[in-house]
Amino acid sequence: MTPLHAHPTVEIITIGDEILIGQIVDTNSAWMARELNKEGLRIVRISTVPDEQKAILDAIDLAFGRADIVLMTGGLGPTKDDITQQTLCLYFNTELVHNADVEETIRKQFVHRPEVLNELTMRQAYVPASATIVQNKRGTAPVTWFEKDGRVLVSMPGVPSEMEWVMSNEVLPRLMQRFQTPALLHKNVLVVGIPESTLALRLSEWEAALPLSLKLAYLPAPGMVKLRLSGHLNDKSLLEQMVEDECVKLRKILGKAIFAEVDAAPEELVGQWLRKHKRWIATAESCTGGNIARKLTSVPGSSDYFIGSIVAYKNEVKAQQLGVSHENLRLFGAVSREVVEEMAQGVRLHLSADIGVAVSGIAGPDGATEGKPVGTVWIAVCDRKKCLTRRFQFGQHRQRNIEMATLMAFTLIKELLEDE
Amino acid sequence: MTPLHAHPTVEIITIGDEILIGQIVDTNSAWMARELNKEGLRIVRISTVPDEQKAILDAIDLAFGRADIVLMTGGLGPTKDDITQQTLCLYFNTELVHNADVEETIRKQFVHRPEVLNELTMRQAYVPASATIVQNKRGTAPVTWFEKDGRVLVSMPGVPSEMEWVMSNEVLPRLMQRFQTPALLHKNVLVVGIPESTLALRLSEWEAALPLSLKLAYLPAPGMVKLRLSGHLNDKSLLEQMVEDECVKLRKILGKAIFAEVDAAPEELVGQWLRKHKRWIATAESCTGGNIARKLTSVPGSSDYFIGSIVAYKNEVKAQQLGVSHENLRLFGAVSREVVEEMAQGVRLHLSADIGVAVSGIAGPDGATEGKPVGTVWIAVCDRKKCLTRRFQFGQHRQRNIEMATLMAFTLIKELLEDE
Repeated sequence: MTPLHAHPTVEIITIGDEILIGQIVDTNSAWMARELNKEGLRIVRISTVPDEQKAILDAIDLAFGRADIVLMTGGLGPTKDDITQQTLCLYFNTELVHNADVEETIRKQFVHRPEVLNELTMRQAYVPASATIVQNKRGTAPVTWFEKDGRVLVSMPGVPSEMEWVMSNEVLPRLMQRFQTPALLHKNVLVVGIPESTLALRLSEWEAALPLSLKLAYLPAPGMVKLRLSGHLNDKSLLEQMVEDECVKLRKILGKAIFAEVDAAPEELVGQWLRKHKRWIATAESCTGGNIARKLTSVPGSSDYFIGSIVAYKNEVKAQQLGVSHENLRLFGAVSREVVEEMAQGVRLHLSADIGVAVSGIAGPDGATEGKPVGTVWIAVCDRKKCLTRRFQFGQHRQRNIEMATLMAFTLIKELLEDE
Repeated sequence: MTPLHAHPTVEIITIGDEILIGQIVDTNSAWMARELNKEGLRIVRISTVPDEQKAILDAIDLAFGRADIVLMTGGLGPTKDDITQQTLCLYFNTELVHNADVEETIRKQFVHRPEVLNELTMRQAYVPASATIVQNKRGTAPVTWFEKDGRVLVSMPGVPSEMEWVMSNEVLPRLMQRFQTPALLHKNVLVVGIPESTLALRLSEWEAALPLSLKLAYLPAPGMVKLRLSGHLNDKSLLEQMVEDECVKLRKILGKAIFAEVDAAPEELVGQWLRKHKRWIATAESCTGGNIARKLTSVPGSSDYFIGSIVAYKNEVKAQQLGVSHENLRLFGAVSREVVEEMAQGVRLHLSADIGVAVSGIAGPDGATEGKPVGTVWIAVCDRKKCLTRRFQFGQHRQRNIEMATLMAFTLIKELLEDE
């Protein structure tokens, strides 16, 4: 029997002293809220409580009074395991029992390094008897699913990579099956290089004229904004048509600022495009310090299109490893069109790539010169026939400048591939 | 009359639909928690509630039942202003009245652009009659301070820069005056390369014997654990002695696994050590794909010790740019002691560095071979005289393997510098 809920409500409980003392930022809740919201689940409260039995019990009690679904994260490290599992046993009136499947799963994760599999980790094979065990392929902490009075509670680890795997692959699909949500459609549009406030102004007229059944969300990340157009209607094909009509208008307004119309990391998309066009890429990085290379190689299988990189932080490396001419370095400086194009062509030739990408700029806080303030960045993307070269003026914040330069390099790679 | 509280407790209430739909990450709470904790105030709960009167009233009620101090952020934008202020009036049984000082403050902030000073903004001059108004020099939203039954509630804007200014300059100093807190001391110890559970086992005896006035926290991050020893006592010098005594024992137990005894990012520390030893560094990266370089260059001023990097993803780059012998590549494979040492020496010589760092491994999910499963990583750190070379066996998770390899390279750099 699956009860019908128009908009199932969710409460998130985050357990962890480390959050309450400000040692870590709770990014899990935001990630979960975003994913849940996409599926039509409404988050009514997020609470962070200490690693204390009474606090956890109180929080569960209150949450069950307000929400259909309670999602708990954290408090499951081997050192904290006891308190959360014991507390769940207390609340659901059950006891810890050894679970052979969980033990098997734990052992599997240590098959290549059995020497570090210790007693504390093995203790995680004891789980509340009345819980359903949910797979966690990213770690040893067991994920438990409880049912009570038509409501659901799931306890997950707080390590972001584990929680995200468990949510995406196990918990969300099960929740979707267990609760009914209205027909939902999301369209994601990645906009790169326009600050959120500027984008909001540019889109204000279009946004104001949106049909009532569509809702727009701005999801900003460093250097980009994800626009999410969501709708729920009973007629799915009508909904799809409405969304497409709005996207046509959006494309007219934003043009090339639209990086993609799917929900994926920019480096994954760049990888897909390079693979599709059968192009090998190499990067020559100064101020980004290897960030473009590490983003590209963070994608599994990137060895199909990524050759390597020369991080030329010092000018001598630019000259010796990339063949940048001393004269250009002297005449125009390292942050110039001339040098960045020589870097791109240099890395393309030296590493036998089809496409060379080069970045040279002043990430800050030091290094500004006359006419080249902090945030000045030159980027060149070259193939055998031509170079796309552009100067950017970012802000004062070092880390953000590096991220922005990386993203803008990705947009130039995209332009070059589209021109081919 | 100032009541005495051994450990004044604080509850944070964050108001905002944008957090509940995952549009923004609540970084305010972590910032506040850190600052409050440093001053000896204990955070007992963080709650995020929607922009709804009933939810806010419920949250205040519960918070006053648990904490001496309630800090509210958000819900004060010009468009949301009404609901929060009206709700506070309802809770504290008062009414909105015009406040000439607040109006004056608002007008001052628009003196150079009076044309954008609109009705919505001016409405913020109406504040609850019974509240004390706290200065906000960073925006127009009024900050209000309420007292009830010896407890305090402060309502602040949610814009991080405004909240931080108000907290640092107004609210924290007033709270310190209003409540008394015991002397507090934190000691951070960074432990690298030991999984949390293994570490907990190794420390279990020591931890069990800790003096009652000291508390130990495990704060895990990928590849490392920050141990935080906190204490509060009225006698500060006694406290310092106690913490130091425990650290002496800890050093005996953990030895080289202690990366540092300060609270700083590993890449910052590596930078400090390189600068102190006046050594230039260069990296040759295969499976880390530039991640070591980008971490090192994320630190401002890293051009004082970082020369550059060669990201040799393809074997041809290892041979051509780093001088790795084809014979070694053929005999031992790219993931081997022989090749990683040639890479480290190659990058050191080619880029004229004092220290060469090289990493070659199988990050996964593909690439495993006979005897070299996913997670096998060789790291070499070489100077003119010697190489420190080690084989590691990490896990199955690509991103985590890259982070672990980066951290272990940092520990080898540390060892090499200490040996010099």
